[in-house]
Amino acid sequence: MSDFCHSLPRTVQDARTPDNWVKRDPQRLRLTGKHPFNSEARLAPLFDAGFITPAHLHVVRNHGAVPRVDAQKAKDWRIHIHGLVENEVSFSLDDLKDLFPVVTFPVTICCAGNRRREQNIFRKTLGFSWGSAGVSTALWTGVYLSDILDYVKPHRRTAKHVIFEGADDLPQGPYGTSQLLSKARSKDNRMLIAWAMNGLPLEPDHGYPVRIVIPGQIGGRMVKWLTRIEVSPQESQHYLHFKDNKVLPMEVTPERARVDDHWWYDPRYMITELNINSIIAKPDHNEILQIPASSPDSPDEGTYNLRGFAYAGGGRRLGRIEISLDDGLSWELADIDYPEDLFREVIHDDPIYGTIDMTDRDTCFCWCFWTFPVSHSKLSETSVISVRAMDEAMNTQPRDMYTNATGMLNNWWFRVAVHRTETDNGIQLQFEHPAPMETTGGWMERIQKEGQDVLKPRFGPSVSTELSTTPAIVPVKEACMTKPDVSRKITPEELKAQDPEKPWFVVKGEVYDGKDYLKDHPGGADSILLVAGDDATDDFMNIHSMDAKEKLAQPNLISVFPQPRYL
Amino acid sequence: MSDFCHSLPRTVQDARTPDNWVKRDPQRLRLTGKHPFNSEARLAPLFDAGFITPAHLHVVRNHGAVPRVDAQKAKDWRIHIHGLVENEVSFSLDDLKDLFPVVTFPVTICCAGNRRREQNIFRKTLGFSWGSAGVSTALWTGVYLSDILDYVKPHRRTAKHVIFEGADDLPQGPYGTSQLLSKARSKDNRMLIAWAMNGLPLEPDHGYPVRIVIPGQIGGRMVKWLTRIEVSPQESQHYLHFKDNKVLPMEVTPERARVDDHWWYDPRYMITELNINSIIAKPDHNEILQIPASSPDSPDEGTYNLRGFAYAGGGRRLGRIEISLDDGLSWELADIDYPEDLFREVIHDDPIYGTIDMTDRDTCFCWCFWTFPVSHSKLSETSVISVRAMDEAMNTQPRDMYTNATGMLNNWWFRVAVHRTETDNGIQLQFEHPAPMETTGGWMERIQKEGQDVLKPRFGPSVSTELSTTPAIVPVKEACMTKPDVSRKITPEELKAQDPEKPWFVVKGEVYDGKDYLKDHPGGADSILLVAGDDATDDFMNIHSMDAKEKLAQPNLISVFPQPRYL
Repeated sequence: MSDFCHSLPRTVQDARTPDNWVKRDPQRLRLTGKHPFNSEARLAPLFDAGFITPAHLHVVRNHGAVPRVDAQKAKDWRIHIHGLVENEVSFSLDDLKDLFPVVTFPVTICCAGNRRREQNIFRKTLGFSWGSAGVSTALWTGVYLSDILDYVKPHRRTAKHVIFEGADDLPQGPYGTSQLLSKARSKDNRMLIAWAMNGLPLEPDHGYPVRIVIPGQIGGRMVKWLTRIEVSPQESQHYLHFKDNKVLPMEVTPERARVDDHWWYDPRYMITELNINSIIAKPDHNEILQIPASSPDSPDEGTYNLRGFAYAGGGRRLGRIEISLDDGLSWELADIDYPEDLFREVIHDDPIYGTIDMTDRDTCFCWCFWTFPVSHSKLSETSVISVRAMDEAMNTQPRDMYTNATGMLNNWWFRVAVHRTETDNGIQLQFEHPAPMETTGGWMERIQKEGQDVLKPRFGPSVSTELSTTPAIVPVKEACMTKPDVSRKITPEELKAQDPEKPWFVVKGEVYDGKDYLKDHPGGADSILLVAGDDATDDFMNIHSMDAKEKLAQPNLISVFPQPRYL
Repeated sequence: MSDFCHSLPRTVQDARTPDNWVKRDPQRLRLTGKHPFNSEARLAPLFDAGFITPAHLHVVRNHGAVPRVDAQKAKDWRIHIHGLVENEVSFSLDDLKDLFPVVTFPVTICCAGNRRREQNIFRKTLGFSWGSAGVSTALWTGVYLSDILDYVKPHRRTAKHVIFEGADDLPQGPYGTSQLLSKARSKDNRMLIAWAMNGLPLEPDHGYPVRIVIPGQIGGRMVKWLTRIEVSPQESQHYLHFKDNKVLPMEVTPERARVDDHWWYDPRYMITELNINSIIAKPDHNEILQIPASSPDSPDEGTYNLRGFAYAGGGRRLGRIEISLDDGLSWELADIDYPEDLFREVIHDDPIYGTIDMTDRDTCFCWCFWTFPVSHSKLSETSVISVRAMDEAMNTQPRDMYTNATGMLNNWWFRVAVHRTETDNGIQLQFEHPAPMETTGGWMERIQKEGQDVLKPRFGPSVSTELSTTPAIVPVKEACMTKPDVSRKITPEELKAQDPEKPWFVVKGEVYDGKDYLKDHPGGADSILLVAGDDATDDFMNIHSMDAKEKLAQPNLISVFPQPRYL
């Protein structure tokens, strides 16, 4: 077992999970309850860490338990490369290092679900809530997939796809997905079989001992704990290749997507490349700015530097990032810093990293950082700060949310509301993100409660591009998870003392029996067994759709629990 | 001289221009007056021609006179390939055919200015008005630029750009522009040195004898009458490489762009790839649909098939095209037909076309066609039909116009207004495009005259997403081109009898002397001399900005002309 994360402890949250051996930062936000581990850092430390994200802050998306691999297992690890190839092979990591040039370069990895909490506030999607920090950048070391494919020689004409499979043990089989062979073979796309991150072996959460890294694509294509590469006439048939990482058309509601299976099998709705996104990190959510009343003695007014990051897909550079202080009526250019470009100016050869050489390419596979200085007086007259980025192919972020069943690739303008209060000493501004992960707040939830249309927000008393004339405001429907005829009460002692075969858990003061779902639960039986005897309100409510809440919970409601929440 | 366009005549319009030897379809729309020839077909015949556009309907963008090349000149034609290469060469067309595989495939070519008339209605940009038919698709035959670059062996590390130069003789030198070497060398990008179009030698307007075709990029990068390829450490220094084919930031007005030169030299604002666009062709502008009153005898109501085309850049497929009948509140999927995919299923070897083989690639470099059937009753309740496309990287067209100094890559939703009239026999619908080229009409011009904000149109009495609360409506300012103290009157005879050194011309009933602008006129002296003694109202007004109108015309106003327009 790799023990290089020695500075991190084993966490209390993992104590009863199959991941109890994994060392993790206890500060990280967990997005799917205790298990499996899906996590983003808090926005402020992520942003403050700068261009290269430390491994312990790096976004993690696990579908199940982390495969437990020790040093000996890593030494014996083989990637089997087979299918429509002339040379079928099984490579150890040492084989890869011996046979192919080792390279290192930075790549931004982003979960396609980043910013999904915003979609979930509008309407619960088929996925769990990410904030805006489900994105990170690291230096990845490995060998090019294109070199490996040249070595094994795919059959011309019949070979069309390259399938990747990991070692994770999920209810519907291991995680797997595929790429078009034409893209995988192209050296320009720089797909990488990687064993190191920021100069150290991969941490278990990041795929130890080896994973694939696909620059410019969504994280969901980058199979971890890689065991198998198959060259095939057809795309991956893995369950989550079809049932995940899709942006279905706007007209397909989550409910319809659940019933009409065919949407998931239409290749046009598969997502590969990241789309354009930009985030405001400074000001942070709930940040407060005190602006002293100006006096004749200090006529120089202060400046606030709005700051944030932005990213795009397909290697395309973000040529401009624009800020609006009047909710989209006018836009001004922010300054952009591209730390990735520093790597284009150096060539290194290193015994560990291999070759670091980006002098021969012009593609951008990393986030960039922007700054927009604004005077205190101007900022204090602003009701909302908006950012949008534009890539070199003149694509930009939409004003309106592309609402979709999985809630993926959400990239409408990122807007931070500004609240102004006059105080004795001057003006106080307080900033409000749309859907921050650290708290339950944010302007989306707030205006929804106020009865506003959350997709057509109005900020401030005077500045607005919108005054909807349509009756589009629909009151938020809550799932009904209760049954009127249940009156049995269970004590905490009874709940705790239950048989492991009867995974009872509490949600919002009601006790449910999970045993009927152990077999087919998409998150695996473990995630139910782990909360047996516990209050699972947060885990359950955050992850499940309204539909799931009604269909899964209600029939299995067995009792009322005397305490409203938390044991 | 090539005489393969034998079915076309020499046109009256060209009689007095340097292009008087070029055969052209007299039906074509001329966008920059008589000369130079910039032309799109009418939308209906372009669309009806289908996937492959006949050469006589294909979009043409010429910056000056067409180089006159006859058969002997074409035989002697050389492309000089030099700069940072190991093997400097000069290739004839026969050399190219002998040394490299000859290939044929379809590519959509689109002027970056397509749909610029819409931007010009909002605010006169630095470019002339294109409608929505400045886009075409042809079968191009030639050899891959990447093969040629492999042959000449660019120097590693120092070579960064590939510069192309044509034979056209423009005021600031020949037309030229460049590509990043990393992109030009990539076989995936399929850049082509082409000598044939739809199986015939290039027509003079399309670059006879040889041009470059760059799939997925704007037409302005595809240098015609190609004479020179230079591998260089720096990008092209050609005048129009900097002063054309840019989308400057929204905040830079045409006036500011004219004064602040630095915007043109920022590489971030250069455009290469096409962005996403989609056009409604059926219904056409001013098309009328009669819907008979339904009777009990004929309960089956009719269906209208909305139809059109769409295109994108960078090889990305348009995975979805969506139609809204309620001005963007909701969207539904249109059916999409991809004729380009038919070429992926065949392999041909032909003595003229060379190899036609797209079986090994997945990129899309052609337009696709969409259909959306809608019942007569639903259509008759609609005030506006909108279309937007989305590419496989989840980029889509914006609701709002990205107003910019050159008016390029305009791709806000294409919207057709629907006007309903009750008649004795039922309902009559009349359709109105935003800015059709065939007429001066369209809803943009109409609502602007009505005092509406042309960027936030409201359609119909009831359906609207917008009710602007801002005083954004600015009355249209007309350029002042007159002087109060000019009273001299010139007769038609005097005007006609003038000295060729004094190129007087008439605009809106006033006579101007163009002699001061012969030397530096961006369109060349020819375009002034050609209208000498004529009424140039249309040519002048369509092409020049308000600024140019005031600065150029007013000081040179010499007389009042007795007749309001047209000799």
